[in-house]
Amino acid sequence: MPIYNAPVQDIQFLLQDVLKVTETGVPGYEDLEADFTGAVLEEAGKVARDVLAPLNLSGDQEGCTLENGVVHTPKGFDKAFAAMKEGGWTALDCDPDYGGQGLPYVMGTAVGEIFVSANMAFNMYQGLTHGAYSAIHVHGTGAQKTTYLPKMVSCDWTGTMNLTEPHAGTDLGMMRTKAEPQDDGSYLITGQKIFISAGEHDLAENIIHLVLAKAPGGGEGTKGISLFIVPKFLVKEDGSLGKRNGVSVGSIEHKMGIHGNATCVMNYDAAQGWLLGDLHKGMKAMFTMMNEARLGVGLQGYAVAEAAYQNAVVYARERLQGRAVTGAENPSGPADPLIVHPDIRRSLMDQKSFVEGARALTYWGAHLIDKSKRQGDEAAEGLISLMTPVIKGFQTDKGFEMAVQAQQVWGGHGYIEENGMSQFVRDARIAQIYEGANGIQALDLVGRKLAQDGGKHVMAFFDMVKAFIKENQDDAQMKPFTDPLKAASKDLQAAAMYFMQNGLKNPNNALAGSYDFMHLMGHVCLGLMWARMAKAAFVGLAAGSGDKAFLEAKIATGHYYMTRQLPASATHLARIESGAEPVMALRAEAF
Amino acid sequence: MPIYNAPVQDIQFLLQDVLKVTETGVPGYEDLEADFTGAVLEEAGKVARDVLAPLNLSGDQEGCTLENGVVHTPKGFDKAFAAMKEGGWTALDCDPDYGGQGLPYVMGTAVGEIFVSANMAFNMYQGLTHGAYSAIHVHGTGAQKTTYLPKMVSCDWTGTMNLTEPHAGTDLGMMRTKAEPQDDGSYLITGQKIFISAGEHDLAENIIHLVLAKAPGGGEGTKGISLFIVPKFLVKEDGSLGKRNGVSVGSIEHKMGIHGNATCVMNYDAAQGWLLGDLHKGMKAMFTMMNEARLGVGLQGYAVAEAAYQNAVVYARERLQGRAVTGAENPSGPADPLIVHPDIRRSLMDQKSFVEGARALTYWGAHLIDKSKRQGDEAAEGLISLMTPVIKGFQTDKGFEMAVQAQQVWGGHGYIEENGMSQFVRDARIAQIYEGANGIQALDLVGRKLAQDGGKHVMAFFDMVKAFIKENQDDAQMKPFTDPLKAASKDLQAAAMYFMQNGLKNPNNALAGSYDFMHLMGHVCLGLMWARMAKAAFVGLAAGSGDKAFLEAKIATGHYYMTRQLPASATHLARIESGAEPVMALRAEAF
Repeated sequence: MPIYNAPVQDIQFLLQDVLKVTETGVPGYEDLEADFTGAVLEEAGKVARDVLAPLNLSGDQEGCTLENGVVHTPKGFDKAFAAMKEGGWTALDCDPDYGGQGLPYVMGTAVGEIFVSANMAFNMYQGLTHGAYSAIHVHGTGAQKTTYLPKMVSCDWTGTMNLTEPHAGTDLGMMRTKAEPQDDGSYLITGQKIFISAGEHDLAENIIHLVLAKAPGGGEGTKGISLFIVPKFLVKEDGSLGKRNGVSVGSIEHKMGIHGNATCVMNYDAAQGWLLGDLHKGMKAMFTMMNEARLGVGLQGYAVAEAAYQNAVVYARERLQGRAVTGAENPSGPADPLIVHPDIRRSLMDQKSFVEGARALTYWGAHLIDKSKRQGDEAAEGLISLMTPVIKGFQTDKGFEMAVQAQQVWGGHGYIEENGMSQFVRDARIAQIYEGANGIQALDLVGRKLAQDGGKHVMAFFDMVKAFIKENQDDAQMKPFTDPLKAASKDLQAAAMYFMQNGLKNPNNALAGSYDFMHLMGHVCLGLMWARMAKAAFVGLAAGSGDKAFLEAKIATGHYYMTRQLPASATHLARIESGAEPVMALRAEAF
Repeated sequence: MPIYNAPVQDIQFLLQDVLKVTETGVPGYEDLEADFTGAVLEEAGKVARDVLAPLNLSGDQEGCTLENGVVHTPKGFDKAFAAMKEGGWTALDCDPDYGGQGLPYVMGTAVGEIFVSANMAFNMYQGLTHGAYSAIHVHGTGAQKTTYLPKMVSCDWTGTMNLTEPHAGTDLGMMRTKAEPQDDGSYLITGQKIFISAGEHDLAENIIHLVLAKAPGGGEGTKGISLFIVPKFLVKEDGSLGKRNGVSVGSIEHKMGIHGNATCVMNYDAAQGWLLGDLHKGMKAMFTMMNEARLGVGLQGYAVAEAAYQNAVVYARERLQGRAVTGAENPSGPADPLIVHPDIRRSLMDQKSFVEGARALTYWGAHLIDKSKRQGDEAAEGLISLMTPVIKGFQTDKGFEMAVQAQQVWGGHGYIEENGMSQFVRDARIAQIYEGANGIQALDLVGRKLAQDGGKHVMAFFDMVKAFIKENQDDAQMKPFTDPLKAASKDLQAAAMYFMQNGLKNPNNALAGSYDFMHLMGHVCLGLMWARMAKAAFVGLAAGSGDKAFLEAKIATGHYYMTRQLPASATHLARIESGAEPVMALRAEAF
């Protein structure tokens, strides 16, 4: 069975030495002293290792089942869910007014990573509840918050998001689910939603569905869409549960992965719902949560890769095959361990340097969200809005690629389901698809975010990179970091310039390069993160304060990323600068 | 259910217009007139579409089952196998002396592609039989050939290859299976083999296992290994089946994909076997079949991607989401089809340009094998020996990547098993692992093939590329092909030069770049294939002889590959030239 150990030292390094959370002045960050964050992370690591990880493979193999309208989660999920609730883990970064612990989002993100690595499918039950909690917290009336939030913070009730319909995925404007206003101010919701994660299950007393639907008078397309709260069981005035609402699960999907999470077809048959936020402003209400939701999926990308990487390392150390070309390293054994072979090293370094870089980018993103929410910092909000499609799209693509590489280290044994490496690959795959498929992320980045607010945010990002290079380029030990970062960011700027100069003539010149731009920007972001981490490591080494071996490994891993990954920028730029012509040349019938 | 239509026009273009098979002078090629090859391919296409493809998804979902030592293949496989036998498809490129039809290997390859695309797991039963047939054909005694080959040509008896043991995969020298010589000249084989594809099943009267084992006196490591014929049922003098041999299936694996093929643990308990080829020369006997076996797996890489691509195109045409940014293309409908969007085009062009390029490379490889075998052409043999790891490693990596892209076009619907896109991804994945994991292919290429015969073969390849460029660079319409090919092959030569200059100092400098070299060389090979195809298309257009739309699409697809894929060479070169240091810098404990 696969193992998982929370990378507490790495997380602490990011929080304390790179982000230096207690020095940021963000309200709430003053509590994040190293002792405290270390204790929380260690405790989360224990839950992950002892409770969640042992259910990951069995949950995949058993899957969810639907019987007479009831979805059964895999064996052990109920007890593990109870343990998560009892430990207060579901309330970590929720509002204390509703029973939360009020910790910053960056801390919820770090703990979330640990739980996702241990058991992605299981953690979705809580993750989706958190998303629904956020929506009600931002858009709900006082009464709605009082009614729903405390139970959702504790996960006595879980939540869902209902967007997709069979014929309307990306293009929500074609949605058919209707909301008919009633005299008492409620609405009757009728329609079918698909791909509803955690839509029905046996882990909670009640399920609070947030449903996008069209109410009369809103006009065509996405303009007519509103967001509704539709509880599985209606909630009485006193907070107790009343009768069953007109919502039921039609079927559950047989999927490639995340088998432990029930993906449901949900049928709404005149189900009673209540407007959340403004009428006909449902899309806007959804978008306000999008940065967090997408950052959470970007996190899944590298968190699953982390778990896969840990198990690739175990195998590379234990499996004896062949001899090091430079001379036997295990002369008393029948062969050397895989880890001596350069191509295995290449694979492990690809994985390690990606995961640690993506972790840094994700925590920095969570920190920007905290700055935006807790300090009203508009620059931070603009920046995370720009970064979100990169974090989601780039990290889930690379996370999947790295899970595949981890599986490859296991050779034929990686293809056998009982070893668990296949599950990492199959689970990681969904993160590239849901919460806006990665092509949509690229479209969002190039078609919308680059030009947002007059291009202010992308300019701020370029300035940030330039400032870091300028500040550090005379430091000889930083040169192996600043030089490649400079080259890659030059390519990124050239790509943005190409879009500006050619996108107006023909927008396809920008859109045909959007996917490459997302990846090019991902590399520059991870390059910046690695340069920052290297700097923090050099500072630690000079001060003689930290764990020398850890800091040296950090620098070597960063150096690998700068040397072996950043050169991809040139290829992405060449693809982008070839424009729309090669992409659009073929007539549609010729495919 | 996924569709599949054999790409007969594309295959014909390769055989008749690019390879110009009838003009090559290879014995047997004189029969390959366009009418004949077209008729064979059309007929194979019908079997693929009507018999094999309809069983692909159901075979995946049902899988194989083991009951009381008997493996049951999925429903319908028995009838389909009977149909393949009756149609003579199993005998296509086999020796007429044993009931084969004697067609060249290039033709067997083309038909094989069609069957693999339609149902990879099913086709393995025949494919492995063909491999065992080849081994006996090359190394068997007259009596062995007479006993086994006719039944294997007809697939009344199927075959297997038994190499791997639990602790010995890549490193076969650690093998423990023993062969004890008996007075009658036979051997008793005892040991356990794992990952035996088609090791046991209900499709054939008998199964002829080829088993690697250690006979006394052979010395340590791979030197002591011999190859044995171990039939499931012993064969009597008159050719009829005798008693059951001491070989049985221990269990079948629950795998990520190719569920329709039984992957068995095989237990040999004093099973009677007969030496095939020379004593203690088993590895050499296996290696003589390796080019064909690995080319066959390289074929699986793009053949599955072809099937996935076809289904991505169907969905991209049918699924209506969003509007073209340049103006509605389906104004009377609720939205435009996906295929109008540049990023969907980018994905489809990536897939199409890879599949067609890989097909050309594979057929060229098969043609080299024919030249080697039918004409004793040593240059051709050297060249295919060099190309084999590229065809296997590069094409299966890219094939998997393209199957993932095809699945991505389907969005969330691609993640649902009943749509079949997940199966393509899961099936394609094994081709990167078996028949020598792709890291081993890279090692074979850089550690062995580059320097083979004094580097003669790689020099011949470089000369071939140079000659093509020289011959065509003054042709203005070929410039968009020769220029990028020149740049990429320059990168490939620089990489080879880097290995020569730095590999002697430290072999890790070569091995750390081996994987990138394999991909870099793959791109140059496909670049050369596309340049050749473009030239044939221009010739056809000038002559006004062919299908104008097809030839124009061919040129546009090739142009895409040259513009959007070949620039990857720069990134691979940069990674290679960074050498071993970044790859090997981390101490093993730091992972």
